[in-house]
Amino acid sequence: MSSGSSLSPYLENYCPKVVFTYNSRSSDGTRNQGGYSDVIVVDHRFVLSIPNGLPSDAAAPLLCAGITVYSAMKYYGMTEESGKHLGVNGLGGLGHIAVKIGKAFGLRVTVISRSSEKESEAIDRLGADSFLVTTDSQKMKDAVGTMDFVIDTVSAEHALLPLFSLLKVSGKLVALGLPEKSLELPIFPLVLGRKMVGGSQIGGMKETQEMLEFCAKHNIVADIELIKMSDINSAMDRLAKSDVRYRFVIDVANSLVTESSAEILEEHVDHGVSITSKF
Amino acid sequence: MSSGSSLSPYLENYCPKVVFTYNSRSSDGTRNQGGYSDVIVVDHRFVLSIPNGLPSDAAAPLLCAGITVYSAMKYYGMTEESGKHLGVNGLGGLGHIAVKIGKAFGLRVTVISRSSEKESEAIDRLGADSFLVTTDSQKMKDAVGTMDFVIDTVSAEHALLPLFSLLKVSGKLVALGLPEKSLELPIFPLVLGRKMVGGSQIGGMKETQEMLEFCAKHNIVADIELIKMSDINSAMDRLAKSDVRYRFVIDVANSLVTESSAEILEEHVDHGVSITSKF
Repeated sequence: MSSGSSLSPYLENYCPKVVFTYNSRSSDGTRNQGGYSDVIVVDHRFVLSIPNGLPSDAAAPLLCAGITVYSAMKYYGMTEESGKHLGVNGLGGLGHIAVKIGKAFGLRVTVISRSSEKESEAIDRLGADSFLVTTDSQKMKDAVGTMDFVIDTVSAEHALLPLFSLLKVSGKLVALGLPEKSLELPIFPLVLGRKMVGGSQIGGMKETQEMLEFCAKHNIVADIELIKMSDINSAMDRLAKSDVRYRFVIDVANSLVTESSAEILEEHVDHGVSITSKF
Repeated sequence: MSSGSSLSPYLENYCPKVVFTYNSRSSDGTRNQGGYSDVIVVDHRFVLSIPNGLPSDAAAPLLCAGITVYSAMKYYGMTEESGKHLGVNGLGGLGHIAVKIGKAFGLRVTVISRSSEKESEAIDRLGADSFLVTTDSQKMKDAVGTMDFVIDTVSAEHALLPLFSLLKVSGKLVALGLPEKSLELPIFPLVLGRKMVGGSQIGGMKETQEMLEFCAKHNIVADIELIKMSDINSAMDRLAKSDVRYRFVIDVANSLVTESSAEILEEHVDHGVSITSKF
């Protein structure tokens, strides 16, 4: 950390010297090629144990989308009291996990979406309590001041004002998406309603392990489409059209040519390292 | 509150049915003319007791600037642990009280300002620990990641990014000013540094009384210029040029023509109602 601050030892992900698994520079200057490989060597402090009962492929996105949602919910106080009302803006990779983990924490979950297309998916399949279409102005009006929290997973440019309106006094908007440009921040709802907007990204190793245990206990996995290495180009095309429910996972072991390396991978997974990658 | 929410009984100021002292509609539709008058009738639940030792005139702005700063510091967790580092952006009516109350809470306080003009005022007279000029790029760089909190009192349009940069991981930016237009909200520092920006406005009656006791204990009053009713026009001109240190207070009692009404006022103040107005 910068001068004068001391970072909690459990917040490795916020360390300014953080080294990511792939496409990141190691301290010796070499570029990390991990993530899309069959084996990887890491310090034992950065190895997670995938609990029994969680399949490696569907657990893999928990290490990104899952922990991102879990850590944000804990940090912003969504889990302290059951029955609070959470809005989840956007039903994609982060959003669908937010519904599942939110329900497991005892929250009342409303999915907020631009169209009614995903209503039955949200309620019948993912277990959301209700569905709010942002273009339905009457329903948006009825929902003003009804939510304790909103998790905003949208990465496209979008207006925050309607989301602030949905919040009660002292409500919290948590941004998890990463729009390239700055968004417009209306100050009046913040000041007049003591509202806030905060961000959060993945979580530390300790909390990630805790999240995995939580998901195993509540039978939560990501909804994935398992692909081979050779499917990557078509998967990228579909990603660009948001045509994935909800994460592609590359089956590295079964994409490899030799039997022996697949065996190495299997053994590695048994020892608790998930190297399945997500986009 | 709107359907489904229950507002704490101590947050009268956030009640959607709030009625302000002046230029606000009462429930019967009449316009309130309180505030600039010599006597006022209010429900006993909305009367505060000015502690002995606090002069009515210099205590009057505590009921606005004082409670605004005090409530924000408590709500956003600035007072839980002494020695945390607070930046105060802007040294005006809110800012100068933020320095005094922040120091009384045991915070390390840095005043953030556009020019070095107010440095000696901030440090020598108000008791700030240090002073940071935003146009000094080297000092701004050195200060990156050093603050736990920033209280932003600036109402003019301004950039939030430099303020986010001053914050440590999980640092909090609290907006108390009310810029007319939306500000630009960069999302990356929020997400990558788990930072947040929240608002806050005055406080409830219980917390306002608590703030008055706190200020009496710590000998904190606002720095004021006491004026008569007849000085209002020139005071308004000076306000437009930010030429006031730091609040004008109208001495209503001594602006009145008859002795008897002045006596009524005196008696009223003795019973704990401050009707001294602030801009």
